[in-house]
Amino acid sequence: MPRAVLLLSGGLDSATVGAIAKADGFEVYALTVTYGQRHLAELDAARRVAASLGVADHRFVPVGLDRLGGSALTADIDVPKDRTESEMQDIPVTYVPARNTVMLAIALGYAEVTEANDIFVGVNAVDYSGYPDCRPEYIRAFEAMAGLATKAGVEGNPVRIHAPLIDLTKPEIIETGLRLNVDYSETHSCYDPDAAGRACGRCDACQIRLAAFASLGMVDPAPYVESVNRK
Amino acid sequence: MPRAVLLLSGGLDSATVGAIAKADGFEVYALTVTYGQRHLAELDAARRVAASLGVADHRFVPVGLDRLGGSALTADIDVPKDRTESEMQDIPVTYVPARNTVMLAIALGYAEVTEANDIFVGVNAVDYSGYPDCRPEYIRAFEAMAGLATKAGVEGNPVRIHAPLIDLTKPEIIETGLRLNVDYSETHSCYDPDAAGRACGRCDACQIRLAAFASLGMVDPAPYVESVNRK
Repeated sequence: MPRAVLLLSGGLDSATVGAIAKADGFEVYALTVTYGQRHLAELDAARRVAASLGVADHRFVPVGLDRLGGSALTADIDVPKDRTESEMQDIPVTYVPARNTVMLAIALGYAEVTEANDIFVGVNAVDYSGYPDCRPEYIRAFEAMAGLATKAGVEGNPVRIHAPLIDLTKPEIIETGLRLNVDYSETHSCYDPDAAGRACGRCDACQIRLAAFASLGMVDPAPYVESVNRK
Repeated sequence: MPRAVLLLSGGLDSATVGAIAKADGFEVYALTVTYGQRHLAELDAARRVAASLGVADHRFVPVGLDRLGGSALTADIDVPKDRTESEMQDIPVTYVPARNTVMLAIALGYAEVTEANDIFVGVNAVDYSGYPDCRPEYIRAFEAMAGLATKAGVEGNPVRIHAPLIDLTKPEIIETGLRLNVDYSETHSCYDPDAAGRACGRCDACQIRLAAFASLGMVDPAPYVESVNRK
């Protein structure tokens, strides 16, 4: 069975990508890159999703991107709530500098160690149209660089970067995952959960997710604080 | 004054690159990426070199590459000693997977935060001929990827990766640094220093460095354990 590294945040997208990697016949090596998160709900979700996928291994690699400053996900800045769709088009304060490049770089190291030729990542160009590192041309450029970075690549086995969600809308992602039996109650997307790990329902990530389930006529099965109307 | 990010390990190469960046007219933002080092002599050296350079800022960013396993620099494996020149051509157990890609990725994030368009890195193709990610074609591919990864890049200000040592031998690097008044007594290259931070004189990094100073008819001014013959 060929091996693949899966970048697994524990969110809806990466859980779906994990199911796709498995359906494609890969033995999955999960990698959760943590960057100064202020809460552990995401890590718990990553553990649950990895267990359900039946991964061969799961590594957590911390990286101190909080030391660079500049993001509500890593510094002491408030997560914005109740933004409108047009406000969400701006690059938000939750943006982490060079996040995808750092995560893919660490995944490349893990692929080298596990002798995997494939990396799966849940980047998506639809919901994050303002992010340069969510576009197909960026992914292809990373792949070209990675092919020159490692001994395996130079010897004719360049790593392939799979971004199977890149052109899908959020409802399409959820439909794909449901066909592959992803249990979305295990996933966590919220930027600002309460102490019990329940999603806030109001940050960008929650709003996008709630709207997607609603558009499918479904109720998001993840735990939310009680005040949230899920329909 | 234009800003540049400097990847600063505290070794001989990065100290030289810092002096070059300064001589080229940049305001220097130093970045020390730490990956599970077992000793702090390198970090002390990075602090000394940054102070001598008069950098605008100096950030330390830890990344848990030790969680991936596979290197004497991050795991509990002995650092090889007294290797011959031909033995040094093999990829050593001190190799850290995707190290340059991870360090450049974090530097890209720091460049984004500081609005720097230039990154300086001390990679070198001569002493590390077996390392794919020390070659000019790798550096150019990283630069192409980086230009697609950030908002500044997409808007016409792609980051430039400067690797001014890439084709220099170690004696040529030292001569360059001495012309720019680098104080090499402040630098640290050893993979296995003693408790006082003194270099072992026998690991690959020490041997390459000692031979380079000797070939110039000089004595390496860095602190070594007493048994080392520096000439």
